Amino acid sequence: MQVDEPVLLPRLSRVAVCGGTHGNELSGVYLVREMLKTEKRKEDGEPASVLMVLSNPRAMQQCSRYVDTDLNRCFTHATLNGPVSEGAPYEIFRARELNALLGPKGSRAAVDLICDLHNTTANMGLSFIAYSDCDWICLHIFRYLQMPDTPMRFIHFDVSTKESYSLDSIGKHGFAMEIGPQPHGCVKSNIYTAMKEGVQHMQDWVRCFNSGCVFDGGPVDVFTMVKNLDYPRDGETRSITAAIHPRLQDRDFCLLHPGEPLFQAFSGETIKYKGNEPLYAFFINECAYYEKGIALSLARKKRVTVPSIRVQTDEEERASEQSFASEEEE
Amino acid sequence: MQVDEPVLLPRLSRVAVCGGTHGNELSGVYLVREMLKTEKRKEDGEPASVLMVLSNPRAMQQCSRYVDTDLNRCFTHATLNGPVSEGAPYEIFRARELNALLGPKGSRAAVDLICDLHNTTANMGLSFIAYSDCDWICLHIFRYLQMPDTPMRFIHFDVSTKESYSLDSIGKHGFAMEIGPQPHGCVKSNIYTAMKEGVQHMQDWVRCFNSGCVFDGGPVDVFTMVKNLDYPRDGETRSITAAIHPRLQDRDFCLLHPGEPLFQAFSGETIKYKGNEPLYAFFINECAYYEKGIALSLARKKRVTVPSIRVQTDEEERASEQSFASEEEE
Repeated sequence: MQVDEPVLLPRLSRVAVCGGTHGNELSGVYLVREMLKTEKRKEDGEPASVLMVLSNPRAMQQCSRYVDTDLNRCFTHATLNGPVSEGAPYEIFRARELNALLGPKGSRAAVDLICDLHNTTANMGLSFIAYSDCDWICLHIFRYLQMPDTPMRFIHFDVSTKESYSLDSIGKHGFAMEIGPQPHGCVKSNIYTAMKEGVQHMQDWVRCFNSGCVFDGGPVDVFTMVKNLDYPRDGETRSITAAIHPRLQDRDFCLLHPGEPLFQAFSGETIKYKGNEPLYAFFINECAYYEKGIALSLARKKRVTVPSIRVQTDEEERASEQSFASEEEE
Repeated sequence: MQVDEPVLLPRLSRVAVCGGTHGNELSGVYLVREMLKTEKRKEDGEPASVLMVLSNPRAMQQCSRYVDTDLNRCFTHATLNGPVSEGAPYEIFRARELNALLGPKGSRAAVDLICDLHNTTANMGLSFIAYSDCDWICLHIFRYLQMPDTPMRFIHFDVSTKESYSLDSIGKHGFAMEIGPQPHGCVKSNIYTAMKEGVQHMQDWVRCFNSGCVFDGGPVDVFTMVKNLDYPRDGETRSITAAIHPRLQDRDFCLLHPGEPLFQAFSGETIKYKGNEPLYAFFINECAYYEKGIALSLARKKRVTVPSIRVQTDEEERASEQSFASEEEE
């Protein structure tokens, strides 16, 4: 059997874990607070290997998703770099602060890895959401998680770096860790514990990777988002006129076939899925997406083969830096 | 066997069903909207037997529990009748409007029955919440519901009429119909359908009662609220430091024994229930109660024997009115 040489990747020196990007998604809020406390108690003077960030403190204080606008849509190239007036939404300013702290997005100064913590009302278990299906760091971290009681999936939003809009997009690598079901504004112990374990495993992996471990490759199923479906709505008031059908509710990542029940109108009748092809349903009945016109998202599943990887040695890194510099000069 | 004569009670001529008292408890919002539509479509010109009310339209528009203050705490005698300044919370004004429409509370002009629709994030199934454990109308309606897939309980808040604070307290009879679990700001089809059936059964019962049916008596288990427990909190920030223990979460109406797990701290340890007696836990992890300092409520259970009842005939009613009038004169 031929053993492929591992892909060599730069050290992950600076890692950030962010909570409270949505102020009412409480697992991340309480987990980051707890990690900050634990860090304070550490007496060995060891420098923090992980930066802990509470992203939207004003929204957290109100226990609302956001104050003026959704912070996690403010990290596009245009929003971070365009002109901004004094009366602009609070979150526009906060996004720029976070970009200064953790980015700048797309620059060599950006942190190496951002893990942004989220909750959903959908029955999704633990999902990684990333903008790439070939970011070996994110895919290897995902493969590394060992949580037998929690269903886990890797979701890919196929959006360009420039157009990518979420906080995790300002790091060199980044993903959202999305766990549910949990009502917003509520903490459930089992969801909190799953998130705590997920973050611990991520930190373990980074430590291992930085110390030179080789991580074997293998397959990962990746769910690539294809489209969103909105609720049926009243033509005049835009109020929704149906809810997710009880046979679909809580069945995130099931394969939805054309003709299967999709919605149940408040008047009683069933509305069926009219798509041309079976697709995987997720973010089913995410409460924060009513205002975005999203009742659920649909994805295609594919199998990605992740190569084995290891960290570059200092020497390899210097060599790679030099080749990077000479490329830049060209 | 001796058959007791039924207790005679006045006709229920005016019934109100209210939704949106909390603007983000969406089953009631969409159910009342749907009932209003259906009523519009009725062509037989039959006068509405049931008044449908959307209690807090401004909060509904924001999809929040309330705008300035919790409307469902504004119906005490003092708040309804005290002085009110121009800058008072919106809900104080709205409570007075509703009291003019459905009350005045405690008066003979008040509607006969109010059913106020609510949702909870707690796993409570369907609960009736009333201020009396001997309101035979409410107890008979509760007994009449036939919903084999939905656990049902009758909760009694032992508060005087004057101090009773919720919308349903301004009717001659009234109860909250509380259904969960459902995240606030979210509609789940199964919860919506349970509420729709609950309201239909209530309307059927009222129709039957008014037409002279005799309803047999029998036992009802009543959960009388004893006390609330708050989350453990940080002495300085008042932030919660623990969540409901995973072994208690979602087990509403279980008997909680002293020494059993109550909370799990964010740091990991278990905090036990320190009470002196076993009590029934409910409203476990209701998201809207974090700000009220309530992690769960505790109740004692007792069995109430409900007598058989029937409506008074017109003649009996006139006789009773006369005796009521002569009592008032005394």
